[in-house]
Amino acid sequence: MPHLVIEYSDNLRPFPEAQVLEAVNASLTSSPEILAESDLKSRFATAERFAIGTQPAGRAFVHAQLRLLSGRTPEAKQDLAGRVGAVLREHTPRPAGVMVQLSVEIVDMDRASYVKEKL
Amino acid sequence: MPHLVIEYSDNLRPFPEAQVLEAVNASLTSSPEILAESDLKSRFATAERFAIGTQPAGRAFVHAQLRLLSGRTPEAKQDLAGRVGAVLREHTPRPAGVMVQLSVEIVDMDRASYVKEKL
Amino acid sequence: MPHLVIEYSDNLRPFPEAQVLEAVNASLTSSPEILAESDLKSRFATAERFAIGTQPAGRAFVHAQLRLLSGRTPEAKQDLAGRVGAVLREHTPRPAGVMVQLSVEIVDMDRASYVKEKL
Repeated sequence: MPHLVIEYSDNLRPFPEAQVLEAVNASLTSSPEILAESDLKSRFATAERFAIGTQPAGRAFVHAQLRLLSGRTPEAKQDLAGRVGAVLREHTPRPAGVMVQLSVEIVDMDRASYVKEKL
Repeated sequence: MPHLVIEYSDNLRPFPEAQVLEAVNASLTSSPEILAESDLKSRFATAERFAIGTQPAGRAFVHAQLRLLSGRTPEAKQDLAGRVGAVLREHTPRPAGVMVQLSVEIVDMDRASYVKEKL
Repeated sequence: MPHLVIEYSDNLRPFPEAQVLEAVNASLTSSPEILAESDLKSRFATAERFAIGTQPAGRAFVHAQLRLLSGRTPEAKQDLAGRVGAVLREHTPRPAGVMVQLSVEIVDMDRASYVKEKL
C-alpha cells in the first residue's frame, strides 16, 4: 500500500533515479512495517519550474513524500522517514555552488475509505 | 471544490483517459456530496520513472487521490472512493503478464483555511 | 520547510510562472511564520489532461497547495492561504469565455517524522 513520490528540482540532473529506486525500495521493504515488497509503489517527479526563497543564489531541493495507511506509531514513521533520508543523502548530486535541501515527509492515508485491489 | 488526481504507471499506456474522465466525473457529481458538477476538477498524471517493490516482475499501478473539504462522514468517503474505484476497475488496461494494483485514497482538506473563488 | 505546488489547467497557458514565483515567494517569506526565506520551495505543475465537471463549457482551474509543518494556528494558515490567493488572483490569465476556478489549500505535515537537512 505505501506510495512514495520523490521530487527534485531539475538543476540536480542527472539524478541517479534507477539507483535510488532500487536502494529505497530495498530499504523500505526490509522494514517490518511493509508486509509485502510488491505493495511499495515508488516514482519520481521533476520540478522544472521552481523558485527557492527570494535570492538568486544556487539552490536545489529533493523532497520525498511517503504515504502510508494510518495507524503507524510515531517511532515507525520516524524509522521509515529515516530510511528514505539515508538513501537520498547518499545518492543526491551536490553540484558545486548549489545549496541542496533534502526533506522527507510521512503522510497518513485514511484507512477507512481506502480502496485497494489487484486487477 | 473536490480535486481528483489519477496517476498511473506508464506501462499502462495507452490509458483511456478521456473515457475515464467522463465516467468518473459523471459518477462523482451524481453523488449528493458534490453540490455543483462544475466544482469537480479531475486530472491525470503519468509516472514514467517508477519501481514497484524489489522484484523485476511485470507490475503496474493506478492510484487516485480525491481531495475534499473536511467534514464528510466515513460512509460518504467510502461511497466516493467506491465510485472512483468502480470506474478505474472497468477502464484500466490489463496488459498480459502484468500485475496491476489499483488504489483510491480520500484526503481531507482543511476547511478553515481553504481559499476558493471564481475569477 | 514550506513546500508550495501550484497547478493549473493547460488552457491557461501562457501562465506567467516566473512572475508568480517571484511574487508569491516574496509575499510568503515576509510572513513571520516563515523563518528563513531559503526554506520556501515553490514549483509549478501543469495539468494537460483534465476535465472540470460534466459540461463541455470552457473551464479552467489554478490550485495551490502549501505544505507546512504542523503547529500553525488557524489564523496563521488563513493568512498564508490568503497571500497565495492574492498573488494568483492578480496574475492568473482570464481567457475570454472561460470560467476560471482558483483555490488554495493548506496542508499540515507531520512534524515528528519530518526529515530536513542541508546537503
